Amino acid sequence: MEPKSQNIYWNVSDVQRSYRERSHGHRGATVWLTGLSGSGKSTLARLLETALFERKCHAYVLDGDNIRHGLNRDLGFSPEDRAENIRRIGEVSKLFTDFGAIVVTAFISPYRADRDLVRGLMAEGDFIEAYVDCSLDVCEQRDPKGLYKKARRGEVKEFTGISAPYEAPASPELVLRTDRCTPEECIAQLLGYLEANGYLAVTAGVEAGS
Amino acid sequence: MEPKSQNIYWNVSDVQRSYRERSHGHRGATVWLTGLSGSGKSTLARLLETALFERKCHAYVLDGDNIRHGLNRDLGFSPEDRAENIRRIGEVSKLFTDFGAIVVTAFISPYRADRDLVRGLMAEGDFIEAYVDCSLDVCEQRDPKGLYKKARRGEVKEFTGISAPYEAPASPELVLRTDRCTPEECIAQLLGYLEANGYLAVTAGVEAGS
Repeated sequence: MEPKSQNIYWNVSDVQRSYRERSHGHRGATVWLTGLSGSGKSTLARLLETALFERKCHAYVLDGDNIRHGLNRDLGFSPEDRAENIRRIGEVSKLFTDFGAIVVTAFISPYRADRDLVRGLMAEGDFIEAYVDCSLDVCEQRDPKGLYKKARRGEVKEFTGISAPYEAPASPELVLRTDRCTPEECIAQLLGYLEANGYLAVTAGVEAGS
Repeated sequence: MEPKSQNIYWNVSDVQRSYRERSHGHRGATVWLTGLSGSGKSTLARLLETALFERKCHAYVLDGDNIRHGLNRDLGFSPEDRAENIRRIGEVSKLFTDFGAIVVTAFISPYRADRDLVRGLMAEGDFIEAYVDCSLDVCEQRDPKGLYKKARRGEVKEFTGISAPYEAPASPELVLRTDRCTPEECIAQLLGYLEANGYLAVTAGVEAGS
């Protein structure tokens, strides 16, 4: 999609992303948690944020429930609104990633096309799709907000897994089995991925001369 | 406006803003530059970002021209779209401020009501309105992008100052006279304000016990 508005010129910030990353000591990235309601996305997001903060990393959670009070308060849960919801969150994640933060997003984000759109917004390696894989049965047993009960009674429309589809990622960077592993094990898996792929170590020498 | 979507619950991040600010050594805030096209907003924003970065502060520019390629690419320049443009940027600024960054926004943001809406989104002291005050004559002489010429020829519709209004702030925190002062003087004024009002110094002891 071309921007609707004309007469736009790009400005390049004098403070480059690479400077920020060297200053922060880690890369910017978006860890995109996707999965059913009750799968544990928000729990994992906040645990990961805390674990990263304790390692002096700049991490920030964008949470589906929270962002809907602000940026996306004008959006509902129709397929079109869900798509726009995810698009905007993707753009905000991209800004935080450019800032050099590790963004952790916790949204159901049920449609593959919407998640792929966000991946396409970002540079290679900036988007880490983590499928929070938990069976519908287990999610429904947990039902921390009582939403599955409401959905079964028809009181919540277009509820993912009940009356709206969830499209699992085809090839996510990570699969977190929250119905088999503890949250701590999942966090270890996430941190292991970030470490093994060089996200957590950016030294002053790496980009010298670039 | 109440959120359109129901069944939303607040999540409070385990990593509090006050922790981040102590870690960063400075407060989060939004420096909102408003003024005519050509008044110098983007120039000042990037100079301020660089000056803050050199002081080890976490600063980030949100630029009107740039953000329209991303988050707000679906919006034009009608009054309604301008309002939504500013609302979204305000919400993103609030996220960065909550993250503990000093956001510097560079948008014409011509309507007082839109800017006041953003101020209202934020906590007291988080929103610093800086009026980049430069006469229309000087802006039109500078015309760095040739937009005033186009607007005078009628080739750009709804152009602020020519065919759309600019409502100057009634009581901004700062007035930066870019038609009388050098950019360096304006940056000194901005830094002076941030220093004098305690934005740039957050020590570990300040919130001990809180």
